[in-house]
Amino acid sequence: MKYGYFDDKRREFVITRPDTPTPWINYLGCDEYCALISNTAGGYSFHRDPKDKRISRFRYNNVPVDRPGRYVYIRDEGSKDYWGATWQPVLKNKNYRYECRHGMGYTVIRSKYAGISTETSYFVPIGENHEFWALRIKNDSPKARKLKIFTYLEFCLWHAEMDMTDFQYTLNIASAVNDGNMLFHQTGYAPKSGRFGLSYFGCSSKISGYDCDRESFIGAYRSESNPVVVESGKSLNSIASGGNPIASVSVDVTLQKGETKDIIFSLGVAETKEDAKATYAKNLSPKVVYEKLETLKSYWSDYLGHYHAETPDPETNSMVNIWNQYQCRTTFNWSRFASYYEAGIGRGMGFRDSNQDTLGVLHAIPGRAKTRITELASNQFKNGSSYHKFFPLTKTGEKGGYSDDPLWLVMSTAAYIKETGDIAFLDELVKFVDAAPAPMYEHLKKAIDFVLSEKGSQGFVKMRFADWNDCLNLGVDNEIAETTWVPELLYAELAEFLTIARLLDKDEDYEKYSVIAKGIKDNFNKKAWDGKWYIRGIDKYGKPVGSSKCKEGGNIDLLPQAWAVMSGIADPGRGVTCMDSVKSLLDTEYGIMLMSPPYTEYDEKLGAVTTFAPGLKENGGIFCHSNPWAMIAETMLGRGETAFKYYKTISPAEKNKIADTHLTECYIYSQFITGKGNRNFGRARNSWLTGTAAWNFVAISGYILGVRPDYNGLVIDPCIPKKWKGYKVRRVFRNAVYDISIRNPKGVNKGVKKFIVDGMKIEGNVAPVFNDGKTHKVEVVLGLN
Amino acid sequence: MKYGYFDDKRREFVITRPDTPTPWINYLGCDEYCALISNTAGGYSFHRDPKDKRISRFRYNNVPVDRPGRYVYIRDEGSKDYWGATWQPVLKNKNYRYECRHGMGYTVIRSKYAGISTETSYFVPIGENHEFWALRIKNDSPKARKLKIFTYLEFCLWHAEMDMTDFQYTLNIASAVNDGNMLFHQTGYAPKSGRFGLSYFGCSSKISGYDCDRESFIGAYRSESNPVVVESGKSLNSIASGGNPIASVSVDVTLQKGETKDIIFSLGVAETKEDAKATYAKNLSPKVVYEKLETLKSYWSDYLGHYHAETPDPETNSMVNIWNQYQCRTTFNWSRFASYYEAGIGRGMGFRDSNQDTLGVLHAIPGRAKTRITELASNQFKNGSSYHKFFPLTKTGEKGGYSDDPLWLVMSTAAYIKETGDIAFLDELVKFVDAAPAPMYEHLKKAIDFVLSEKGSQGFVKMRFADWNDCLNLGVDNEIAETTWVPELLYAELAEFLTIARLLDKDEDYEKYSVIAKGIKDNFNKKAWDGKWYIRGIDKYGKPVGSSKCKEGGNIDLLPQAWAVMSGIADPGRGVTCMDSVKSLLDTEYGIMLMSPPYTEYDEKLGAVTTFAPGLKENGGIFCHSNPWAMIAETMLGRGETAFKYYKTISPAEKNKIADTHLTECYIYSQFITGKGNRNFGRARNSWLTGTAAWNFVAISGYILGVRPDYNGLVIDPCIPKKWKGYKVRRVFRNAVYDISIRNPKGVNKGVKKFIVDGMKIEGNVAPVFNDGKTHKVEVVLGLN
Repeated sequence: MKYGYFDDKRREFVITRPDTPTPWINYLGCDEYCALISNTAGGYSFHRDPKDKRISRFRYNNVPVDRPGRYVYIRDEGSKDYWGATWQPVLKNKNYRYECRHGMGYTVIRSKYAGISTETSYFVPIGENHEFWALRIKNDSPKARKLKIFTYLEFCLWHAEMDMTDFQYTLNIASAVNDGNMLFHQTGYAPKSGRFGLSYFGCSSKISGYDCDRESFIGAYRSESNPVVVESGKSLNSIASGGNPIASVSVDVTLQKGETKDIIFSLGVAETKEDAKATYAKNLSPKVVYEKLETLKSYWSDYLGHYHAETPDPETNSMVNIWNQYQCRTTFNWSRFASYYEAGIGRGMGFRDSNQDTLGVLHAIPGRAKTRITELASNQFKNGSSYHKFFPLTKTGEKGGYSDDPLWLVMSTAAYIKETGDIAFLDELVKFVDAAPAPMYEHLKKAIDFVLSEKGSQGFVKMRFADWNDCLNLGVDNEIAETTWVPELLYAELAEFLTIARLLDKDEDYEKYSVIAKGIKDNFNKKAWDGKWYIRGIDKYGKPVGSSKCKEGGNIDLLPQAWAVMSGIADPGRGVTCMDSVKSLLDTEYGIMLMSPPYTEYDEKLGAVTTFAPGLKENGGIFCHSNPWAMIAETMLGRGETAFKYYKTISPAEKNKIADTHLTECYIYSQFITGKGNRNFGRARNSWLTGTAAWNFVAISGYILGVRPDYNGLVIDPCIPKKWKGYKVRRVFRNAVYDISIRNPKGVNKGVKKFIVDGMKIEGNVAPVFNDGKTHKVEVVLGLN
Repeated sequence: MKYGYFDDKRREFVITRPDTPTPWINYLGCDEYCALISNTAGGYSFHRDPKDKRISRFRYNNVPVDRPGRYVYIRDEGSKDYWGATWQPVLKNKNYRYECRHGMGYTVIRSKYAGISTETSYFVPIGENHEFWALRIKNDSPKARKLKIFTYLEFCLWHAEMDMTDFQYTLNIASAVNDGNMLFHQTGYAPKSGRFGLSYFGCSSKISGYDCDRESFIGAYRSESNPVVVESGKSLNSIASGGNPIASVSVDVTLQKGETKDIIFSLGVAETKEDAKATYAKNLSPKVVYEKLETLKSYWSDYLGHYHAETPDPETNSMVNIWNQYQCRTTFNWSRFASYYEAGIGRGMGFRDSNQDTLGVLHAIPGRAKTRITELASNQFKNGSSYHKFFPLTKTGEKGGYSDDPLWLVMSTAAYIKETGDIAFLDELVKFVDAAPAPMYEHLKKAIDFVLSEKGSQGFVKMRFADWNDCLNLGVDNEIAETTWVPELLYAELAEFLTIARLLDKDEDYEKYSVIAKGIKDNFNKKAWDGKWYIRGIDKYGKPVGSSKCKEGGNIDLLPQAWAVMSGIADPGRGVTCMDSVKSLLDTEYGIMLMSPPYTEYDEKLGAVTTFAPGLKENGGIFCHSNPWAMIAETMLGRGETAFKYYKTISPAEKNKIADTHLTECYIYSQFITGKGNRNFGRARNSWLTGTAAWNFVAISGYILGVRPDYNGLVIDPCIPKKWKGYKVRRVFRNAVYDISIRNPKGVNKGVKKFIVDGMKIEGNVAPVFNDGKTHKVEVVLGLN
């Protein structure tokens, strides 16, 4: 069963029936105000921080699913029948028509029922701290109609964690009241992060009533599906003093035959009531509001203009040009903060995650990425280690003990410099948590030195709490367990660091770390090879993990294989062998499993990975974040068929056909897909907030389509299916536009035969830096050399 | 509107309609297994600890309210209509008949619909780790009926806090499967407190199908009200591997006209599957199960036999003989752990609360109270301070900084000795958190010494984070703020300590602390008197709090007035004056407000109290815990009318008449009733877990009815309304039964004129200790001397 389709012209995903297998959501807002919204208008909003400044409430993992939300009820004052403009929460089925369009930063939901058509546009205007619900309502019936509109939004009592857990406190602090045509929610609660301001709800039409108290509006033993106020057709004008505050206003609407009316609802935060009233007054006109929607669309048009490909595969185009970039930007901005599955109360910004997330946005917003990298670097300690996460609102960091964390700073910094050429960044002074500012170059060096200092007795790196695989806890409270994957990451980042050292003429460093890198490679190949693949680590008893010798499961793990190739650490021949093992032992019809076979019972020496049901999460799930690493490795081996097959297998666009198996959104990536060995094989979980987005963008744009920045220019090195005759890429790079066309007349996977820039043939495959604000034509012909 | 009535003969509260204004709940289990159940079978269960060992899931503060629960659906295979045996979750209204009987440790819910009658008895058998749902179903229609029964219980993924907040983890660890006629829920999750064992669900009849996966059972965009499985009439035999595990079994039942069948469902925890199967096999017979219900009733009959009064006021009898004692025992056992409003994830056992809670159970289970007091004493530090709370399962304590905490240990220990005469307890060695065991006497002395060491510059006691009023945060991070109430508590406990010191012939201590006590009293009266009442404290700027001079609200606070009298610290005359001020300024038709007027905006120098809406919680709410202190004070002033009026005003039994205002259960106390100045004046909040229960029992039994233990015997000192002609009390005390009859021929409030024990006139009003296992007759005549 299919639930929707891509409308690439409008950059929208169109959902054609409301009962998607899970709520299919969108993120509105790309600055300080964030609103998650589902295809039936469920979801919640927060300002800056989803824990301390939660504006509206959402019941995660709820029965009934996906409530509450931003609801608009329509009541026919003639028939007394009522329904939802977004299907939820009334769930009319018979004769109810529906369409949802998730666009770039906006969502439009249309309904038609009982001769009344509605179109509700939800969005957060650029740079503003509120959201609009713009209702356009039309009488498509042959007679005049008297209607009553009711809204429903449930406020959160600001601190999301307390709101979910400390009811004897939170249920006594609410204050929500009416003031003219507006409702205000402000409580005495003062969060640690400072005063919260207040939230407001307003309406462009004169309201005929309101309710601020949930229990009054809903009524005893009822739900959002049949609130007593909507059923009776009369707002109770309740205020909330304690209890559960809501924003419900009612508006009387009479529509002549064929008549259309616009009603704007706005929900926002402000510092003072006066500020709120002033902002609200500016946004009463539907004209102004719909203009702001157009401005938002222009913003995204500009953003996506930084990269555009035309390949022979339409789904790939939908993803790489629109949805993959959109998810990258969303993930970057709300970095793993909050989703329908992440409650947004504990995670903060991950050091590791956020560094990786920059890879997905550098091409479009390098300045913001630089700011982020700088902020991350300031969460590093002088010994080179770093906090595992930090909270931007309170500027506090938390936790350490992850063996890989510091190295990702090298990767993001190198990527930033390749994108921008801004080598001066390496001289910029950035503070440490516990020491005075030092140049970024020192931050990178210390990151590497710290990981080097953690060398284990086998010459790998001590695992400590975990590496990238948070749930593989081999080394808690012991010095013996080691990770074989961090040495690979270290080797890759040493290569970046060596290039940087050479750029800065740091000859001494270059010599020193070259020797170190060679030593790491030698030891790795001597000790990590299992025969057909590399092992994953050493447990606290000195036994191998991720080895054919393991008896309890987990014989092979994807990471050491993909990174053996990606990092260049693999001895000749072994790269092909280990990636062939991945293909035969880990690849499935739904993607590459993280490891196999799954563990079947809890094992304290392996940790949390063994607490998951077989096939879920890190326990043999198809962890999407790591699939692009296999794609990149395959391109490095020149195997374009396999690389592209891996890409397509986990591509959201491919899931539309199997939505009832996949369940989550078919336009963005999820954290994982259930692996073999679980009855729900193929089912995706934890959509939106995942490192998958950035790495897939790197894999498809930089390695399969093969256009990627390097220090001295734009490398063009495709690795594609043989049957592709050619494709185009338009990319902004260092203040110039590269209009690239690639032809593949001989049907090869890889290999640039001819390279023409602005009509001139060039040796190699690197388009030079122009920095002239102009468009340059690059013609590439693939072929066997 | 009334929702029910007391059936004292059966010791039941009978609820006559399902849609009570809030869920009216009961607690099943008085040992290790606890099941909260509402009048429509909503609620949840846990084993030992509501955070680490949560068995089933509950959605607090949910819409729709009070879900999930322990549901039994009945489906008529002829009409295909279905309904709930406990009203929820199907909520049939038309032609649905209902009755709920909350009893002592059990709840029976009856329904009649479509000619089918059900009676579902829920209880936890004494000393066992499971709960029964005993369904008795009868065909009251004139023809044979084919029915299908479905159960529904939603498992919690063990760790209640993670279950509410960390969905990306918890939704991937479930394992719930079918095994014969049983379902098992066990995951790999290993809590800090050790292995959790597993939970099981079984059925005495052969099951025709099952479901372990919530989403399979409920279906997309449905709820417990209309699960797809019940609607279709066919279990899907789903298992849970990840996701949300449930226990649903289906049973085919054919009933001839007039026929009755019994089906037993059991939910429990066990260490191993084998243990679970063995336990389950023993409980398949309805006969065995209903016998266990009778055993439970006998247990409670014995328990309540320790105290029984017959007064002229039937509601007082219902409360003091049954429900108040029942709530005391429940609160003692699950000390503030978990309710419908306390999420049971963070509080642990309060040091202050748990000491006070012993006051409500000492007469019936002094041995358990002693164990608790010992455990509390072991959470004391060698300097006399103590943890504010501790977790019995993990044996860890948390937090300090409360200025009153240590003193409650003196109170509970003294009360225990008065009840039992077990003076040897004072010599028992109990450990400190940070020091070797010492005699209990030393624990008490150190408690007092610690508070003495915290003397402030005005001679009161430094407030630190808070005293009993957790939300009055005057002294966070400062040394200046003082509490005037802790000196009163200190003075009261010094009196207890002095008596104990004399009992043990500790003459030196007696002399020393007598002098200290006098100094405290002198200073207090010199500095705390405001003219018509005592002030509440000194803020961090040295200004009075709870004084007529305060401008921002909070001119008078109940605590210093009630305790001025209770502790005996008040100068002559002032006790009457300050309690008159309480009456004129704090008393309302719904009870005595904690302070007045409420604060209207956040004030950092006063703390959390100012974050509550006016009239709620400590901000001018009628905090029920402190109302009994005023009752006791009034009896000490001899004012029986006022004391009893205060008692009756907050008595749950009185709330039955105003249930639509009061909202919470009309058979147990709530934490507070909304005060004047809030639109919900009279509405109660946070039922069950409150210090109110124990103190009301002390006030009514010990001070109004006036029978209270002392070191040398049973004091009988009534203070009652003048119109009472007499009453009886039967009380167990030190291995004897005191059969007390009080007559009041002259219509006085107070004053024992004649005192006859076993036919012999005795001077004074103390019945001697007999310790002979026999019943002794005590005749008391009140009158003016």
